Amino acid sequence: MTTLTSFGIISSELRQVEQKLLESVPEEIPELASVVRSLILAGGKRLRPALVFLSGSINSPDHEKLLNAAVAVELLHTATLIHDDTIDQADVRRGIATANSIFGPGVVILLGDFLFAKAAHYAAMTSDPEAIDLFAKVLMVIVDGELRQSLGKHNGVPSEEEYYRRIYAKTAALFECCTETGAILSKAPEPHRRALTTYGKKLGLAFQIIDDLLDFTSTEQIGKPAGNDIRQGTITLPVILFLQSAAVGDPRAEHVKAVISGLSKDYDGAIDIIKSSGALEKARDKAAALIEEAKAALLVLPNSDSREAMMEIAQFTLERTL
Amino acid sequence: MTTLTSFGIISSELRQVEQKLLESVPEEIPELASVVRSLILAGGKRLRPALVFLSGSINSPDHEKLLNAAVAVELLHTATLIHDDTIDQADVRRGIATANSIFGPGVVILLGDFLFAKAAHYAAMTSDPEAIDLFAKVLMVIVDGELRQSLGKHNGVPSEEEYYRRIYAKTAALFECCTETGAILSKAPEPHRRALTTYGKKLGLAFQIIDDLLDFTSTEQIGKPAGNDIRQGTITLPVILFLQSAAVGDPRAEHVKAVISGLSKDYDGAIDIIKSSGALEKARDKAAALIEEAKAALLVLPNSDSREAMMEIAQFTLERTL
Repeated sequence: MTTLTSFGIISSELRQVEQKLLESVPEEIPELASVVRSLILAGGKRLRPALVFLSGSINSPDHEKLLNAAVAVELLHTATLIHDDTIDQADVRRGIATANSIFGPGVVILLGDFLFAKAAHYAAMTSDPEAIDLFAKVLMVIVDGELRQSLGKHNGVPSEEEYYRRIYAKTAALFECCTETGAILSKAPEPHRRALTTYGKKLGLAFQIIDDLLDFTSTEQIGKPAGNDIRQGTITLPVILFLQSAAVGDPRAEHVKAVISGLSKDYDGAIDIIKSSGALEKARDKAAALIEEAKAALLVLPNSDSREAMMEIAQFTLERTL
Repeated sequence: MTTLTSFGIISSELRQVEQKLLESVPEEIPELASVVRSLILAGGKRLRPALVFLSGSINSPDHEKLLNAAVAVELLHTATLIHDDTIDQADVRRGIATANSIFGPGVVILLGDFLFAKAAHYAAMTSDPEAIDLFAKVLMVIVDGELRQSLGKHNGVPSEEEYYRRIYAKTAALFECCTETGAILSKAPEPHRRALTTYGKKLGLAFQIIDDLLDFTSTEQIGKPAGNDIRQGTITLPVILFLQSAAVGDPRAEHVKAVISGLSKDYDGAIDIIKSSGALEKARDKAAALIEEAKAALLVLPNSDSREAMMEIAQFTLERTL
């Protein structure tokens, strides 16, 4: 993804993000330094920092503030991934053995807290109370969503509306925070701010739908078995759409329901049913509609390389296969 | 402690803190509301919020900002206790069954994160970048200290200096943050700010020494067995002072070392040795010296009810038995 034009125009900014992220590694605690470094480097494409810079460059960018905000959102993202892995007792993420399996959950809780603290520090460094408050609020939304998901698992099949609420909290709220923060820190006029906020939110929703879709088709490349979500009791859009459209008494739907409720352990069978049902294509159509809305929102903004880059990111989000 | 004069002069402020703390209970998640409410109500004396208000009332108090900061520090304190209990797998704290034993660690990590997020929100509400950054930094200090302690346990007996470093991170840094935040938010002149910062730090160090001392003499009143720290592998000041002063080859010292290193499980014997050695009294003397330094620092400030209240809190910290 780093070869996209969209990232080229902010490549020096992203290098600075990378530098500052690495400065967050606790070198003075040698046992942890290499683990934290791996976790930070596993982040890869830095989509969230890119969104901060691109949305912040439409109006009057303040480079230092945008850089601090970009680092803050990426650290916040990393911290939530770490706590997620602890909660899920996941052993691998993106092919890297997680800190969890190396140190045990106690230390890993603290590692997540450490990165939260660093994130809060960088957010504070923007010296912009509105941006800081937005940052605190998005953390509340993310955690509130995780709490609801943890408590609500195995509560049966969520409605499509509940699914969107969940992926908003899980992913789209932070995307939205990135673009809105860019708007705030560049003193964007209200219509621009609304456009960027809408873009971030819709892009985030589409991103997570695609992520959930790829979970059905993924191989060991991303370090998880195909259908990992359903195996973990997480019901995503393809399952919801499949069950919505299934006729009453359809034996395929009954089989999927049995797997979801834990009555059957035939995950592979359920995954095959979903994949062959056309539900993945329907889910992709939903994502495509959101991407169109995200791109449409940007049309309020003046034409510029940054706007083009955000268009390209939207398109890529839909087309990515990994 | 709430009957102290010191708390009387800010009783309406502390009631407002209580009110705002309860507003942080996630009522919309019924499974969690009552647990979070218990955790918040277990806080008791609200010493940290009191320090924010008292130190903030010496100069030009901004009531709203002080209130937000007071709520932020108390929520931060509660969040760190929750994560601590998760890490320690503690079942009781202050006699209340912890969320950990009710929900399991996954949900409890998130509960702590939820309160961190709320704390960050209230810190942001002060709209004071310096106070917000101080808040982020103290979180880093606390977490860094916890990480070092988690990784360093069973590394033998720490030096007295290492002990002070540890209790600074664990307790004194937040006390110091409270009084410094009060100074910042009331636009205290530099000498006042230094005085309040010194007072907070010394008070916090003494507070933790007394806490560690009481661990040896506590009964089931605080919901932990006597000598809980030594049972958990945490070496505190009385042990350090005892071993410092023991003659080479002293069989009592050898016995304590055997228990600390895990060679012997005779915790009760080790605890009795420490208690009868005079080390508790020596530790109390160290705390008393810190309290004198804390009180002396306050003499720079104009005489006022708030200054008197802080003097009284210092004295009480030394004399408390629970």
